[in-house]
Amino acid sequence: LPSMQTSGSKPCPCPSFKLREVASMYFTMIAVFLVILVVALQGSVPHESDFPYKVPLDPQGLLELSWNVSYPEQAVHFQLLVRDLQFGLLFGMSDRGEFENADLVVLWSDGQNSYFGDAWSDAKGQLHMDSQQDYQLLGARRAPEGLYLLFRRAFSTCDPKDYLIEDGTVHLIYGILEKPVHSLQAINISAIHRGLQRVQLLKPNITIPELPSDMKTMEIRAPDVVIPSQETTYWCYMAELPDSFPKHHIIMYEPVITAGNEALVHHMEVFQCAAEFDSFPHYNGPCDSKMKPDRLNYCRHVLAAWAMGAQAFYYPAEAGLAFGGPGSSRYLRLEIHYHNPLVFKGRRDSSGIRLYYTATLRRYDAGIMELGLVYTPVMAIPPGEDAFILTGYCTDKCTQLALPAAGIRIFASQLHTHLAGRKVVTVLSRDGREQQVVNADGHYSPHFQEIRMLKEVVAVFPGDELITTCTYNTEDRSRATVGGFGILEEMCVNYVHYYPQTQLELCKSAVDPGYLHRYFNLVNRFNDEEVCMCPQVSVPQQFFSVPWNTFNRDVLKSLYGFAPISMHCNKSSAIRFPGEWEKQPLPTTTERLREPVPRCPPAPGSRPAAPIPLNLVELRRD
Amino acid sequence: LPSMQTSGSKPCPCPSFKLREVASMYFTMIAVFLVILVVALQGSVPHESDFPYKVPLDPQGLLELSWNVSYPEQAVHFQLLVRDLQFGLLFGMSDRGEFENADLVVLWSDGQNSYFGDAWSDAKGQLHMDSQQDYQLLGARRAPEGLYLLFRRAFSTCDPKDYLIEDGTVHLIYGILEKPVHSLQAINISAIHRGLQRVQLLKPNITIPELPSDMKTMEIRAPDVVIPSQETTYWCYMAELPDSFPKHHIIMYEPVITAGNEALVHHMEVFQCAAEFDSFPHYNGPCDSKMKPDRLNYCRHVLAAWAMGAQAFYYPAEAGLAFGGPGSSRYLRLEIHYHNPLVFKGRRDSSGIRLYYTATLRRYDAGIMELGLVYTPVMAIPPGEDAFILTGYCTDKCTQLALPAAGIRIFASQLHTHLAGRKVVTVLSRDGREQQVVNADGHYSPHFQEIRMLKEVVAVFPGDELITTCTYNTEDRSRATVGGFGILEEMCVNYVHYYPQTQLELCKSAVDPGYLHRYFNLVNRFNDEEVCMCPQVSVPQQFFSVPWNTFNRDVLKSLYGFAPISMHCNKSSAIRFPGEWEKQPLPTTTERLREPVPRCPPAPGSRPAAPIPLNLVELRRD
Repeated sequence: LPSMQTSGSKPCPCPSFKLREVASMYFTMIAVFLVILVVALQGSVPHESDFPYKVPLDPQGLLELSWNVSYPEQAVHFQLLVRDLQFGLLFGMSDRGEFENADLVVLWSDGQNSYFGDAWSDAKGQLHMDSQQDYQLLGARRAPEGLYLLFRRAFSTCDPKDYLIEDGTVHLIYGILEKPVHSLQAINISAIHRGLQRVQLLKPNITIPELPSDMKTMEIRAPDVVIPSQETTYWCYMAELPDSFPKHHIIMYEPVITAGNEALVHHMEVFQCAAEFDSFPHYNGPCDSKMKPDRLNYCRHVLAAWAMGAQAFYYPAEAGLAFGGPGSSRYLRLEIHYHNPLVFKGRRDSSGIRLYYTATLRRYDAGIMELGLVYTPVMAIPPGEDAFILTGYCTDKCTQLALPAAGIRIFASQLHTHLAGRKVVTVLSRDGREQQVVNADGHYSPHFQEIRMLKEVVAVFPGDELITTCTYNTEDRSRATVGGFGILEEMCVNYVHYYPQTQLELCKSAVDPGYLHRYFNLVNRFNDEEVCMCPQVSVPQQFFSVPWNTFNRDVLKSLYGFAPISMHCNKSSAIRFPGEWEKQPLPTTTERLREPVPRCPPAPGSRPAAPIPLNLVELRRD
Repeated sequence: LPSMQTSGSKPCPCPSFKLREVASMYFTMIAVFLVILVVALQGSVPHESDFPYKVPLDPQGLLELSWNVSYPEQAVHFQLLVRDLQFGLLFGMSDRGEFENADLVVLWSDGQNSYFGDAWSDAKGQLHMDSQQDYQLLGARRAPEGLYLLFRRAFSTCDPKDYLIEDGTVHLIYGILEKPVHSLQAINISAIHRGLQRVQLLKPNITIPELPSDMKTMEIRAPDVVIPSQETTYWCYMAELPDSFPKHHIIMYEPVITAGNEALVHHMEVFQCAAEFDSFPHYNGPCDSKMKPDRLNYCRHVLAAWAMGAQAFYYPAEAGLAFGGPGSSRYLRLEIHYHNPLVFKGRRDSSGIRLYYTATLRRYDAGIMELGLVYTPVMAIPPGEDAFILTGYCTDKCTQLALPAAGIRIFASQLHTHLAGRKVVTVLSRDGREQQVVNADGHYSPHFQEIRMLKEVVAVFPGDELITTCTYNTEDRSRATVGGFGILEEMCVNYVHYYPQTQLELCKSAVDPGYLHRYFNLVNRFNDEEVCMCPQVSVPQQFFSVPWNTFNRDVLKSLYGFAPISMHCNKSSAIRFPGEWEKQPLPTTTERLREPVPRCPPAPGSRPAAPIPLNLVELRRD
């Protein structure tokens, strides 16, 4: 695509620009530009109250993004609040938050004129004007708190330089221009103040169920924590339900964030502890502290989870999450991930989660089911892979046995891997034919694990299959990554939230260990006895000793795509449903879902490849 | 893409159309439409003499296509002669000549009005108007011999429904409308008279070298053959050079086709016989006849080859193909493939090839080198594969040893496989980095094997690698296809024509047999001893007994992509260059050629999605 150089090729009003640029650096902090009026409004301009979703982009909260999603228009409307505009800013999206190969909207000023344009960065991070302008500027206004920029972007533009906005995680990137620039091309993207923020941009369009009049609230909050002055802290706080608290239904929950800490509280989860212990120690401190009592590890049953950018979570009208009552622990653990990259000191926080619950039980208890791979080293990823795929199955045999004839309804999902995870998808399959995607995240990040409401509830019936596929990147690793609980081991899990609750808590698989043994044997013979096959050696040790040539890599892939599986069709992590679950045939897929063909609206407002001049009035800040 | 229904949704001038349609069938043979004038001409209209390439489309020669190629415009100009226009015709291109998923230009008439439009057929063969009209009608005129239609098509249109015109074979398709149709959608593509013709559409743009004044010609023609009344005949005719014919250089050759048989003579080759035999029997008859003397099998050294649509073949100015003189046989074998699908009887033919040669030897003798795979069963394709890839290597070690320091120049290439071949490509690689494509055919057909001049001469130096990759389809087979000479066995060969001639006649590879043995062992163990590994069993028998599950397929692919190779770096098919050629490392590629991104010209003449009305005058023919 031709790069746009309109502004660069204009006769430059100031020939000694570079000198002037240097000089202007001294004035940077006091030079503020105010955008007055922009372009003729295209379509209806949304009101400020029309942006239900909000997230701070940078840790200082200088940039704050609000947005809404129009599914009929297949477009997102953005409202970007710039609290301290200097010489412009960059905002955009890229595959995993990198500034190379990114899709960007840029507002830049040469000190006299300002421009707004849809741009892209190449593999070296160099900016180019987009030949098709798909970020449409809808308006800009000055308010006491800063400058508001309003713009619109279709999900899909069919411009190959543009990011395709899909369900799941979107890596937003931003940059702040602290010096004037005479053209888009002159912006040195590696030298500016910049960062990334992950959000679920395409929030589902859910109608909020009616809330009962007897609804009560309970806040699970860590009181007055001093946020540690380090980038990452996981804070643990133990809470307790009242004595003899009867069974209730949680029907909604929402975050409670201490004002001013919006950019620091990254995500929070409330776990219920195991019922087999009568009591749990009180604790209020870092989760990785040596002082943390071991017993807290038995508090792992998720009651609620929130991550940045998420709103309140509503259960469907027919269901609620049971808590309280006999057979359920009174103890709860709150875990807060503080993300403090600027290492602020002494910041105090009392954030947490507010549960909305009712004693008038709804028709169904909601349940959580674990899909994907068993936590076992037999599922491994060779080192140096950019996109290695592992698949976990919930087979027809298991759903046939464990699901009620009327089926279950999945309404939310939380995807989970450890650090090497890059994509996760669960597909519902019936008689070998893929029916629909349950949940998919093509830009999954292990640093952003939300419980996500599904766009539409998925009905699963006895005999259906649920196939969960995870894609991993191990390019930075020198030895195999095996399955397991450790942070450098891997998982491939989808926690699906559904109703009515069944006994089936786990529907996961792993390759048959006997076939893996054949693989090691084969590697051993084929590669002239380099792999230690001594029986006392563990599976991870065997994986670590495989020489990772292309043949051994390829054959491992082939093995996982062929060998029979061991099924965990379990009532709890230890108790299986009765039946034969070893050496089960690998489910086969005879008909795949079609890749959705991106719809490219004829772009009513997409403009020719030229930057749009803006009328700017230069103002001193004080 | 929305299908165009303009003509269908017009108020129909004749409500009882179907009746009229039936009635009109009686008049079909006398109803002829004459296109008088069409649309304003776009760009310069080429003269008739500007179409250097010509091919009959159908066996009767009712449709005759001429064309030229404009590389600066990246477009082809077509001139289609329709000898007996009835109610229109279809012409177009598709991947392998099928009428589904085809790119078509359609001229159709409802008996009153006629229309010309760019259309496409879906996977069921249903026609649709193209949303972007990329076949541009340039003119139409009536001549005594028939109607001439002139139109233009860019190589690449970026319309996903359009065929991308690439180097190599193009499968042209045609259809004849013998009844009026009231709309494009009403054409039943499976019920019309139709067919396919393969051509190399993008002929290279070669400057013809100056021809010497002492040039002589010699015609190798089968005298007065009665073409057998069967679809396929390979005709063999033995010719002889004069006694003591000294060494000459062939510098050009061209076809001599008996007038009227243009649609029957499919391809012709002249072979020189082996010098080790003093004489060869005369023969003039079918090549598969029981009467054909066995010795004719020793006449396999290609001197000249022509296929339908090809023009004269010119050697580069510096080189000629040596024939005559000591150490070279006086005997030549002409082989003609007659393609007679309408089984015409008693048609007489004296076609052949006219050689242009000179006694004033040029600077270099030209040579022919065989690249690709050794003819051995160790290279095999599992059954039921839609695109299985085998690769043959000419390694750096061999070119280092056998090529002169100044290198060789490849100027022409003939790709060769047996019936399962679908694509063939040879790439030149240097230090593991792919440099350029020597010759590629993404729509290769074993039924259309021409010697093709290269667009640009390729220089190959000592240490370079030549990697030949073939793609096979075995979906119609139930057992493995092994390498070999048989028509149901496979080959992967590129005969490259080059100069100066060297001793290297063969530079081919095959997988190391020891590693293949390990594969059979592995399959045996992994699949519970189903494969007979008894030492007396041949490699084909072992392949035939492999149970072709996904694992065994995948591992065979992995083996071919990993195992060391046995190199045939040979002076002739039996004599190797000195050196170690067994268990050679597989060449690795660290840098691949980029896929060319199709350039989509802004389509100066591409029109909105509506059929173009034509002014037609209805004329009775006689």
